Amino acid sequence: MSLSILCRYTCSVVQRYAQLSSPLVHRRCLVSSISLYKNHNPGWGSKKHTGKRKIQLQSLLLSMDPEVEKQLAPLRARCKEQGDIVRKLKTDGAPEVDVKREVQELKSRKKELEDMTLKLSPPDSFDRAKMNDLIKRRFFYDNSFAIYGGITGQYDFGPMGCDLVDNMLAEWHKHFVIQERMLKVNCSILTPETVLKASGHVDKFADYMVKDVKSGECFRLDHLIKQHFEKKMADKKTSQEEKEIIKRKINLLEGMTMEEMDGVVKEYDMKSPLTGNDLSDAVEFNLMFPICIGPTGTLKGFLRPETAQGIFVNFKRLLEYNQGKLPFACAQVGNAYRNEISPRSGLLRVREFTMAEIEHFCDPDDKSHNKFSQVAGVEVTLYSACAQMDGESAKRTTIGEAVRGGLVANETLGYFMARIQQYLLKIGVNPKKLRFRQHLSNEMAHYACDCWDAECLTSYGWIECVGCADRSAYDLTQHTKGSSVKMCVERLLKEPQMVDSVVAVTDKGAIGKAFKKDAKAVQEALASLSSEESEKMDKALSENGEYELNGYKLSRAMVPSFKKEQKKVHVEEVVPSVIEPSFGVGRVFYALLEHSFRVREDDDKRTFFSLPPVVAPIKVSVLPLSSKQDFVPFTDKLADALTELNLPVRVDDSTGSIGRRYARTDEIAIPFGVTVDFDTVNNTPHTVTLRERDSTEQVRMPIDEVPLTVKKLADGKILWKEVTDKWPKFVAQETTK
Amino acid sequence: MSLSILCRYTCSVVQRYAQLSSPLVHRRCLVSSISLYKNHNPGWGSKKHTGKRKIQLQSLLLSMDPEVEKQLAPLRARCKEQGDIVRKLKTDGAPEVDVKREVQELKSRKKELEDMTLKLSPPDSFDRAKMNDLIKRRFFYDNSFAIYGGITGQYDFGPMGCDLVDNMLAEWHKHFVIQERMLKVNCSILTPETVLKASGHVDKFADYMVKDVKSGECFRLDHLIKQHFEKKMADKKTSQEEKEIIKRKINLLEGMTMEEMDGVVKEYDMKSPLTGNDLSDAVEFNLMFPICIGPTGTLKGFLRPETAQGIFVNFKRLLEYNQGKLPFACAQVGNAYRNEISPRSGLLRVREFTMAEIEHFCDPDDKSHNKFSQVAGVEVTLYSACAQMDGESAKRTTIGEAVRGGLVANETLGYFMARIQQYLLKIGVNPKKLRFRQHLSNEMAHYACDCWDAECLTSYGWIECVGCADRSAYDLTQHTKGSSVKMCVERLLKEPQMVDSVVAVTDKGAIGKAFKKDAKAVQEALASLSSEESEKMDKALSENGEYELNGYKLSRAMVPSFKKEQKKVHVEEVVPSVIEPSFGVGRVFYALLEHSFRVREDDDKRTFFSLPPVVAPIKVSVLPLSSKQDFVPFTDKLADALTELNLPVRVDDSTGSIGRRYARTDEIAIPFGVTVDFDTVNNTPHTVTLRERDSTEQVRMPIDEVPLTVKKLADGKILWKEVTDKWPKFVAQETTK
Repeated sequence: MSLSILCRYTCSVVQRYAQLSSPLVHRRCLVSSISLYKNHNPGWGSKKHTGKRKIQLQSLLLSMDPEVEKQLAPLRARCKEQGDIVRKLKTDGAPEVDVKREVQELKSRKKELEDMTLKLSPPDSFDRAKMNDLIKRRFFYDNSFAIYGGITGQYDFGPMGCDLVDNMLAEWHKHFVIQERMLKVNCSILTPETVLKASGHVDKFADYMVKDVKSGECFRLDHLIKQHFEKKMADKKTSQEEKEIIKRKINLLEGMTMEEMDGVVKEYDMKSPLTGNDLSDAVEFNLMFPICIGPTGTLKGFLRPETAQGIFVNFKRLLEYNQGKLPFACAQVGNAYRNEISPRSGLLRVREFTMAEIEHFCDPDDKSHNKFSQVAGVEVTLYSACAQMDGESAKRTTIGEAVRGGLVANETLGYFMARIQQYLLKIGVNPKKLRFRQHLSNEMAHYACDCWDAECLTSYGWIECVGCADRSAYDLTQHTKGSSVKMCVERLLKEPQMVDSVVAVTDKGAIGKAFKKDAKAVQEALASLSSEESEKMDKALSENGEYELNGYKLSRAMVPSFKKEQKKVHVEEVVPSVIEPSFGVGRVFYALLEHSFRVREDDDKRTFFSLPPVVAPIKVSVLPLSSKQDFVPFTDKLADALTELNLPVRVDDSTGSIGRRYARTDEIAIPFGVTVDFDTVNNTPHTVTLRERDSTEQVRMPIDEVPLTVKKLADGKILWKEVTDKWPKFVAQETTK
Repeated sequence: MSLSILCRYTCSVVQRYAQLSSPLVHRRCLVSSISLYKNHNPGWGSKKHTGKRKIQLQSLLLSMDPEVEKQLAPLRARCKEQGDIVRKLKTDGAPEVDVKREVQELKSRKKELEDMTLKLSPPDSFDRAKMNDLIKRRFFYDNSFAIYGGITGQYDFGPMGCDLVDNMLAEWHKHFVIQERMLKVNCSILTPETVLKASGHVDKFADYMVKDVKSGECFRLDHLIKQHFEKKMADKKTSQEEKEIIKRKINLLEGMTMEEMDGVVKEYDMKSPLTGNDLSDAVEFNLMFPICIGPTGTLKGFLRPETAQGIFVNFKRLLEYNQGKLPFACAQVGNAYRNEISPRSGLLRVREFTMAEIEHFCDPDDKSHNKFSQVAGVEVTLYSACAQMDGESAKRTTIGEAVRGGLVANETLGYFMARIQQYLLKIGVNPKKLRFRQHLSNEMAHYACDCWDAECLTSYGWIECVGCADRSAYDLTQHTKGSSVKMCVERLLKEPQMVDSVVAVTDKGAIGKAFKKDAKAVQEALASLSSEESEKMDKALSENGEYELNGYKLSRAMVPSFKKEQKKVHVEEVVPSVIEPSFGVGRVFYALLEHSFRVREDDDKRTFFSLPPVVAPIKVSVLPLSSKQDFVPFTDKLADALTELNLPVRVDDSTGSIGRRYARTDEIAIPFGVTVDFDTVNNTPHTVTLRERDSTEQVRMPIDEVPLTVKKLADGKILWKEVTDKWPKFVAQETTK
C-alpha cells in the first residue's frame, strides 16, 4: 500500500472498509490521552508518577501566542467535547454507524480548529505566484505537452526539476537502502488484474463521480459540491444562517458516503458548473488506468496504482535472497498512476507520479529494532489521534518517549519515523513546517495497527508527503489467498512440539501409471499437504471420486486413504508484519521548493531557492567577468577540473553584468559561484572569488584550491564558515543593473 | 526516435517509408567502398595514394584463421556480386521496387555469411542455461508476477539486477550528463494521441499479425513463418531441394512486405501452431498501448513507445534554458512500452523497458564537435554498409579516420560513437564482442543521414544495444507541423540582408474595439507574421472576409491591406539537426551479464559474474570465520565503517564454510571480500584478509586500513595490483565442501 491520501485510502471510499473500533488503537489512544492530560498537570514528574510503566511523554507545547490561544480555546473545547463522545461510544461498543457519524462531526470540528490555527499563525511572506513564475521561467517543471495545449494532471520536469528529483532520490538511496542495507527491486508497472484484485484495488480504489448528462463532462463529486458551496459562500445573497450551514457541510464532506453526497447535490439542485446541464447520479469511478496486455485483448491489467505490490508478490524470492531470515526491508522507486477525475493543485494531485516505498518485513510478535537506540533521542512533532480528538495542538517529544509511552505502536515504526524525519531535514525541509499526524482509527485501513503521516506545511495547508504505517500481515495474506502460494516464514519453536497430522496414504503404482514423469511431483505435493488440505481432499474423493491438486486430477484409487499421525515439529509458520514508509516524491519535492523559496531583502525581484548543496541540481557556476580571450583558458580549465570531480557545473559567459549573472545562478539554486576576474588573469598566484548563494558572501582564493574546496562543500564535508575562516573576504557590489 | 530494432524501425513496416536512394548515403557508401578496396591493395599507403582528400581508412582485418577464411570466401563473393548489382541499379536510378528486391537478396546473402562466420568462430564456452540458472537462483531478474503464473515479456529486477541497472545508469549519468554538461528532463509517459500522430507512431509503429480464427490467439507473422519453416527443416521427410528453398525464404523474410508474407502463409497452407486451426489474413497491429486519459474516455493517448518525443516537444523551453544557443544536448532516462505480439528472447524483446536517450541539437550546417580531437584516436570496430554489401567483415579503425574518410557522416556523430564505446567498455562490455554496424540505406528512416548501431555479440547473435543516428531536422519539423509552434533557432547572418517582406497594415481602433485587453496580443501576432502567412491571410480576407489567427477572428476592417517592404534582417531561422544516441538499457544489461559470466576452471559448479567494481551491485562482503561472540564486534565495526563510506555491504555470518560463502558472494558479483578470522580476534594489530573475486587472491592487512582501501578499489581509484604490492599475500584453500 502507500501514502494514505496519495492512494486515496483516507478519502471517501476506503473508509467504508476500515473498521472503526480496532481495540489496539483505541487502547493506545486512551493511554496517550492520559499521558497528555498528565502533561498539563503540574504534579507531573513528581515521584508518585514514576514507575516501570510510567508514561514519559515529555511533550512540549509548540510556542503559541496567548492571545491566539484565547481565540482557539473555544474551538479546542468543541473538539474535546466531540472526542469524548466518540471515545465513549467506542468504549460502550456502540454500533459502527453511530461511531462513524460522530467521527465525521469530530473531523469537521478538527478542520475548523486547524483552519483557524493557520489563519492566526504569524503571516508567512511566501508568495506562491512569485515562486510559480520562477519555476516556470527557469523550467523546473511545467505542464506536459504544452505546445499541444498541455494536459492537466501531468507535468514534465525540466533540467532543474529533473536533477533535483534525481538528487533527492540518490540521497534517499544512500540514507535508506545503503545505510539500512535494504534490498531493492524494480518491478513491472503493467499489472494483471488478478494481482490488483487480490490487493483490493480492483474493488475499492475509486472516487465518486457525476457526469454532465449532455456533454459527458465528468466531475469529482466532492470537488463539485465544494466548488458549488464556495460560490454560494461568496454570494452576497446568501444569508449568514445559510452560510453557517454550508460551512458545516463543507467540513463534513470528506466523511460522507456516496449516497449522502448525492443527497447534497439533489438538495441544492446542483448543475454542471460548465454548462448548467443536469448531472447524472453519482457513480464510483475506479482510478486505475485499464490496459490490455498483448494483442488479443483478453489479458486485462492496469497501470500500477502504487509500487508496493511488486514487492509483496516477490516476497518469497526476497526472503530466500535474505537466507530465510527476518527482519529485512525491500525498497522500490518508480512510477505509479492514477486516473484522477479532475486533477488540481499542481504537483499535489497528478495522474502520473513517482513513489519511493519501503516494505520492512518483521516478526509479528517482535517489532523491536536493533538500531532504535540510535534514534531514540530524535525530537519530533507528533499530532496524535488523541490530540486531534481533544482539540490539542501537535506536541514536541522524542521518538524514544513516544514509543515507550505507547503513543507510537512499536520500535520499528518509531525508528522509521525518525529516519524519515532525518531524511527530510537533510534535503532541506523546514523542521518548523514538518509534523507527524497519526491517523484517526477510522482513517486507517482495518488491517493497519498504527499509521503516521509526515506532513509538510505549504501554501495548500498541511499536505501528506510520507506515510508510515504498520500494515500487519494484510498484504501477504491477501496475496496468499489470491495466488495460493504461501507467503510466510518459518520461526523456530522454543521447544519442539508434537502435533496431530493427517497424512495421505498413496498408491505409488497407480500414480506412476497415471502421471509418468510427473509422478514424483504429484507424490511431493501429496506429502506436503497440510492437515486441513488432507481432510478436504479425503472428503472430496469420497463424495466426487476425484480431486484436483496443482492441476493433477487424482482419483480414490491413487489415494486410497488418509491416516492420523503424531509429528514432531521444530518450527511454526508465521506471516510477517509489514512496516511501510511510503514517499510521494512529487509532494516532497513540491514542499521542498516552497520551504526553500526566498526573496532577497534588498530586491524583491531577486527570488531564489535556498536548496542544500546535497540536492542542488548544479553545484557550482563559473562566471568570467569579461568575454576577453585571456579569460577563456582560466574558465575552461576550472570548469574541466570541477567536471572531473563529477560536479555538475554551469558556465555562464554571457555578457550580462556579474550581478545579473549571480541572480540567474541563484534562481536555479546553484550554491557556489566562482568568478574569474581581472585579478585572476593579471596576477600570480592566480586567484578567483568564491561566492555562497544564501549569504552572498565571497572570499578570494587561489584558483587551484577551488575544485576540491567546492567538492567538499557540495558533499557537506565542510561548511561555508570554514571557507570564510580560511580565506580573505572579498567585497563587491551585487547589482543586477 | 530510438534504437532501430528496439523501435522496430529496421523491421517490416518502416522500411516502406524509408527511401532507398538517399544520394548522400549512396555517395558515402561508394567512397568507403573504394577505400576498402584500396585497403586490400598492397600498393596502399605508398606515395601515389596520398593527397588532401585521400581516404585513410587504416582498417585492420579482424584476425581470422586462414582455413576459416577459405570457407567464407565463396559466401563473401556472393555478397559482393549482389552488392554490385544493387550499386549499379542505384547509380542507374532504377525503379525503387527493383532496388528493393535486390537489396532483399543482398540481405539474405549477408545473413548466410554472418551465420557461417559465427558457426566457424572459435567455440565459446558460454553456457546460457548455466547463466540463467544463476540469474534466477540469485534473483537478478525473473518473470513478473510469477506467483500468479507469470506473464511473458515482463520482468522484475531483483536486488542484484536492480542495483546493477541503477549503477549502470549512475555511471551513464556521470559519463554523459555531467561530463558533457547536458540538460536532463523527465517527461510524461502517458502521451496524447496528437503528439504521437505528429511523430509518425500512430500511423507507422506496427507489426504484422495473424489470428487463429477460432481461438483468437495472435501470432507475429514473421515469427510464425519462421517457426513453421524451422519445423519443416528439422523434418526428415523434407527433401534437400525443399530445404534449400526454405532456407532462402527464411533469409528473405525480414525484407518481405505484409502481402508477400501472407502469400507465403497461403502457399505453405500454414495453420495455427497451437490448435491447427485456420489463420486469418494478416493485419497491421499498432504496437503502442492505447489508454484513455481522464474519466470521460474522450482523450485518447498511448504509453510512450520511446522517451525521445518528450525532449522534442520541450525543445523551445530547453533552447531558452540554454540561452538560445546551439549546440546543446538533452538526456532522458525512463520507461517506454511496446505491446509485443509474442515477446520472446528473454530481456531482448519485452513489453516494458528502460531507455536512456540523448538528443544533441546542432546547427545543420556545422556538425563539428569541439571535443572531437579528444576521441579521434579511439579505436572502433566498424561494420560499414559497404562492407556489408561487399561481404567483407567488420574493420578496426580510429573514429578520427572514419570521420575524415567520410565513412561516419560527421564529427558529432563520431564523437558520440566513441563516447558510447568508452561507456560500454567502462561498465564491462567485452571489447571483442562489440562493433558498430552501419544501417544499409534501406534500413534507415528516409530523414536520417547516417545511423550506426552499437551491437554486442551474445548467444542470440549480434544484438543492437545502442543506436546512434543523425536524424537531421525530421522530429522538430514534424512537431512544428503538428503543433503549429515553430521549432527553430535564430542564426546570425554573416552580414545583414535586405529581404522583401509583406506586412499587415492594421486598423488599431477596430482591433482594440473587437479584442479589448487582447488587442495587444493580436497586434503582436500580426507584426510577427511571415510573408507567406501574410499573403495567405490577405487572400483569405478577400475571399471569405475573415481569418482566424491564434484563435482570434479577424475581419477585413481590422486589416484593410498589406504592403510590401524591404526589411534588413540580421538573423535567419534554421531547424536544428538532431544527433541521437539511444540506449536500450535492458539489452546493454543483458549483454553485460553474458560478457561477464564466468565458470571457475577448477570447479564448473562455481559460476559467477566478473562485473567491474564500478557497476557491481554490492562492493564488499564481510565474512566472520566463526559465529563466536568475540567475532561480532569486529564484523559489526567493519561493516559499519564500510557503510559509512556509502559502500553497499553484505555481511554473511551464516554457518557455511568460508569457501562456500566466497562462492555465494562471487555469484552475486561482489568484487571484494573481507574475512574476519581467528588472527583478527586474537592478535594485535588486528588484521583481516581482503580477497579479490576474479583472481581469488588474498592479502592480509590491518582492519583499520580496509574501509578506505575498498572505497578506492570500488571507485576505480586504485587497482588490485597496488593492494597486492603493498600487503603480504594470504594463501588459503577455497573449498566449497
